[in-house]
Amino acid sequence: MRETKDIFYWIAPELAVLEKTLCEALASPVPLIAEMGMHLVRSGGKRLRPALYLLAAKSCEGFDEKKALPLAAAIELIHMASLVHDDVIDHASTRRGAATANAKWGNQIAVLAGDHIFAQAFLLVSGKGYTEAVGDRMASLVQGLCAGEILQDSSLYTAEHDLEEYERRIAMKTADFLATCCELGGIVGGASPEVCEGLKAYGKAVGMAFQITDDLLDVTGDEERIGKPAGNDIRQGVVTLPFIRALETSPDREELCRIVTNQDMSDEMVARAIEIVRASDGIDVARARAEAYIAEAGRVLPEAVGGEAREAFLRAAAYIGKRDF
Amino acid sequence: MRETKDIFYWIAPELAVLEKTLCEALASPVPLIAEMGMHLVRSGGKRLRPALYLLAAKSCEGFDEKKALPLAAAIELIHMASLVHDDVIDHASTRRGAATANAKWGNQIAVLAGDHIFAQAFLLVSGKGYTEAVGDRMASLVQGLCAGEILQDSSLYTAEHDLEEYERRIAMKTADFLATCCELGGIVGGASPEVCEGLKAYGKAVGMAFQITDDLLDVTGDEERIGKPAGNDIRQGVVTLPFIRALETSPDREELCRIVTNQDMSDEMVARAIEIVRASDGIDVARARAEAYIAEAGRVLPEAVGGEAREAFLRAAAYIGKRDF
Repeated sequence: MRETKDIFYWIAPELAVLEKTLCEALASPVPLIAEMGMHLVRSGGKRLRPALYLLAAKSCEGFDEKKALPLAAAIELIHMASLVHDDVIDHASTRRGAATANAKWGNQIAVLAGDHIFAQAFLLVSGKGYTEAVGDRMASLVQGLCAGEILQDSSLYTAEHDLEEYERRIAMKTADFLATCCELGGIVGGASPEVCEGLKAYGKAVGMAFQITDDLLDVTGDEERIGKPAGNDIRQGVVTLPFIRALETSPDREELCRIVTNQDMSDEMVARAIEIVRASDGIDVARARAEAYIAEAGRVLPEAVGGEAREAFLRAAAYIGKRDF
Repeated sequence: MRETKDIFYWIAPELAVLEKTLCEALASPVPLIAEMGMHLVRSGGKRLRPALYLLAAKSCEGFDEKKALPLAAAIELIHMASLVHDDVIDHASTRRGAATANAKWGNQIAVLAGDHIFAQAFLLVSGKGYTEAVGDRMASLVQGLCAGEILQDSSLYTAEHDLEEYERRIAMKTADFLATCCELGGIVGGASPEVCEGLKAYGKAVGMAFQITDDLLDVTGDEERIGKPAGNDIRQGVVTLPFIRALETSPDREELCRIVTNQDMSDEMVARAIEIVRASDGIDVARARAEAYIAEAGRVLPEAVGGEAREAFLRAAAYIGKRDF
């Protein structure tokens, strides 16, 4: 598994400062809050969202590390807080191999810790001289994540999905976030509105590919590699692209439909559902869709982004399309 | 029961616009989010926090209703979101006589709805030309609320409390919020830093009195009047000033200590604990403390605040000190 810092070596110095900024931001005079903050920073994560933001910011002429860093940390804090709340909602006990906040401290504290971290994100960017667009994008980001989760919750354990609905769902859940990261990089780097739009389109395409790949890994991966049991999505009622395709084309689609709509899926049923999907063309279709988005990312990247920055963007896109992490 | 709009009639026009702004802010293209928003606005609430903010803002020479309103709504949204999460945490099924969001839609949706409303608060103030101090105060506010809850959680069902610890706890939970509302009014109204500090001190004193009175009502009130069963605090392990005093001075303090530290308190035990407190001087001591804060509020109110505004501030303080709602 290649690490984010290898893929993003062009911004390695900034990513190193980011870790320090995150530690400082999560410090607190309340011991329990400080303890949770350290646990969350140390549990790691790919830092993909701040990395894309920093890449976009550094590709602009007006880049200033000192000015850009607080927002990079704020972006990661928003991601972190949303994961803390997701884990409460999903009753998850581990993430990336470490205990979740709800498993370690209980749901009550985890809900409050998530709120505290969301607020810290907004606190970090206040008084830093960012334009008002920054606060607007951050708040819209959080709202999009919540709306995406609420929409997803309302379609759990159903078999009526199609590509369009799936893509709308993963856009709200993931791709719009990555799009905003790239757009914010452009804004903070002082890029023109056209370049900001192009960066945002790159982030959106990369984000779509990222989520499709993530969904694929849940079907093709094993627990050791992805840090959670395979079939996790379908067990929770989340019907992803490989399943949607198999529900349309597999000769066993009726059996698959009975499984994915069953709220008390046994391990055997999950294994059988994955078997049906693997035998169908669902995985190939999803892979092709991810590749199409990676190609799109390269196409929409603004021409103004050249040299080392361009290489870094294309390397990131290619990596996300092929990732097995 | 007098309503907030009677007490705050000097700002009645602004409070009317506030309701409209809240409805607009909680609208959403996602039907479930819109439905929850409407439920929350209609469930009412005293709107005390935005009322204090508007009072402070309108007392300043630079007051501009159009500019001030979005922040008034944002303040109420922060309060609303924190109540939604509190109700999840406390497994509360009713608030102000209406079903809570968690009771109506489940914990998952309620956690996400709270996040969505927090974000909406920040979205409302972005692009409105407020100074950076506004975002800073709002984020600090949310953090203070969370830290206060986390601190309170760690001292539930214990008998080791004293006045100082109690006052620190209610400051974080309530009074700092009301202080910030008044300070923000000064900031948005263009008051001098000295006047902003004075307004903040007024809000803090009123907030202390407000929470002490709230805690008193839980001992002296009945379910019909306060919309929740009496003894609710002690049942949940929250030891308030009347209890703290009774634990020091009551001849039955050992029995009281055994009850308040019992995590499986029966209805009979709650009733007996309240009986012990009512027979002690706990209620008088708490009442005197609230009155002292109301007097302090009048003393610290900046001299620059005169005329109708001054009257409105003093009327609000007197009301809060005597409230039975």
